[in-house]
Amino acid sequence: MTQGSVSVIGLGLIGGSLVRAADAAGWKVRGASRSEATAAAARDAGFDVTSSLDDLLRYTADDALVVLAVPLPAVAEVLAVVARHIPRCRLTDVVSVKQPVGAAVARRAPQARYVGGHPMAGTSASGWSAGTATLFTRASWVVGSDDGTDLEVWTQVARLALDCGAHVVPAGAADHDAAVARVSHLPHVLAAVLASVGSDGGPLAMALGAGSFSDGTRVASSAPELVRAMCEANRDALLDAVDDALGRLGAARGSLASTGALAATLQAGHRARQSFESRHHKDGTADIDLTAPGALTQLREIGRSGGRVIALEGTRCRVQV
Amino acid sequence: MTQGSVSVIGLGLIGGSLVRAADAAGWKVRGASRSEATAAAARDAGFDVTSSLDDLLRYTADDALVVLAVPLPAVAEVLAVVARHIPRCRLTDVVSVKQPVGAAVARRAPQARYVGGHPMAGTSASGWSAGTATLFTRASWVVGSDDGTDLEVWTQVARLALDCGAHVVPAGAADHDAAVARVSHLPHVLAAVLASVGSDGGPLAMALGAGSFSDGTRVASSAPELVRAMCEANRDALLDAVDDALGRLGAARGSLASTGALAATLQAGHRARQSFESRHHKDGTADIDLTAPGALTQLREIGRSGGRVIALEGTRCRVQV
Repeated sequence: MTQGSVSVIGLGLIGGSLVRAADAAGWKVRGASRSEATAAAARDAGFDVTSSLDDLLRYTADDALVVLAVPLPAVAEVLAVVARHIPRCRLTDVVSVKQPVGAAVARRAPQARYVGGHPMAGTSASGWSAGTATLFTRASWVVGSDDGTDLEVWTQVARLALDCGAHVVPAGAADHDAAVARVSHLPHVLAAVLASVGSDGGPLAMALGAGSFSDGTRVASSAPELVRAMCEANRDALLDAVDDALGRLGAARGSLASTGALAATLQAGHRARQSFESRHHKDGTADIDLTAPGALTQLREIGRSGGRVIALEGTRCRVQV
Repeated sequence: MTQGSVSVIGLGLIGGSLVRAADAAGWKVRGASRSEATAAAARDAGFDVTSSLDDLLRYTADDALVVLAVPLPAVAEVLAVVARHIPRCRLTDVVSVKQPVGAAVARRAPQARYVGGHPMAGTSASGWSAGTATLFTRASWVVGSDDGTDLEVWTQVARLALDCGAHVVPAGAADHDAAVARVSHLPHVLAAVLASVGSDGGPLAMALGAGSFSDGTRVASSAPELVRAMCEANRDALLDAVDDALGRLGAARGSLASTGALAATLQAGHRARQSFESRHHKDGTADIDLTAPGALTQLREIGRSGGRVIALEGTRCRVQV
């Protein structure tokens, strides 16, 4: 028995991992990559993959979930092709910003039944060969939950996420973009800054870099054009996060220069890290009826307060809060 | 056959790992911890450890190497005890700043034959139980090489470092402190800032934190009082590094706000990270005669250019450059 059908467009790290994970979970999976080499590698691994997006969409059933897994700069062009073949398709994505993708869907595929998605998983490697079926295990997978969301598609996207081993974090697009500016985009900017300041110290500094420098700069090894597209698309929220970082770093600088003290900075950071480490310690559970009035508001509140959906049965979902 | 004798004062993560690694390499190892519980745990593990610093020093032979492995705030007090027992002892340390320790030795143990040391290894855990015999494997271990360095003690410290699986990076104290401000102390400050900015985003942001946030904040879980002592003791060099970070982050902010572009920041960071990843790819080797005139100058130049000592035979050392 298959869990459903999914057509994955783009077979990089995330799309390639999704193909593997969904297949392993019993979904009927098809995929397309514009790279003939990637398509061939995926076929060699036993997957139903084509290098023709037209072909993929031609053989995608109406009730299949179409997943955009291309980099943000390619989204608009791919959406136009999708809309031509299956204007009212069930559509989600795995792109790391949600408001720009939502706007592109409204322009290019206005009839699509779109529910945004974002699995919070990755490595600094990219491409099909870097993907694994376990990339999403225990990851948070944001599923867009703004008012007006199509709950049938929401359920399908959440089911896919859960089947891939993730838990679902319901969030509105603006809340998502503000949060990832702080915990995903800012880390990339700070990693780049730290790498450069270290390198400015010359070969001795590079030779002495160890755990703290290696961890703090790890994501600077990601492909810069992908990071750039992600950060620049979330400009307003990222500016807020960068300003907060400048404020806190400037305060640390002032305190170090005047009294020599860094205690406030370091203690606040330590507390924050501890709250991050304990983020998944949730005691309560509850059931939400997705067909009840106000269900989307309730889901967004659960996400805002750090809760998550851990199971689905019919139109009911089990949440941890 | 023993490689030599070493008396380790302080059995936290670094001192405790040193006891295990030196013992495994055939050194005759004694240790002292002011914590009776730590001393008992170390004795249970088969090591010759006391909770009395006086006892340790009373039974330390004149040709043994004494290693200060206590946190910086305890260094002055411990030095006074060492100087009372063995005024002309062979002395090194594993503290993360070198000029302040050198100054403390000059005041508290002026006759000691001191050569500073700093193994670039660690984890965010601390204490005896976090230590391992392999902590220093393939790590850089700075050995102080300013003019006037006692080459007999230098050789003994370098031998200990090599026997523990590290390679030796020769450096003057000021060069060391400037380098670690960039690649060790600044990473702690940025990790604290990132953790706080993320936490300011609330529970949703914490829930969405994944690899980039987790790596970028990892060292914020270190004991803040240890990090504080290390950073505050290196104030001037750390201020330079923080100012460079503020400059680069401010430039990124300006570029993002005006043209929306982050390419310069991200590309520079990517290049810097690549140069860090390739730091140990050295083609050349050479032999240095430690008794030759100018040997210390030569060693410092090797360290400055990213080279390292990988073997010692008598008074000759083999370097990779």
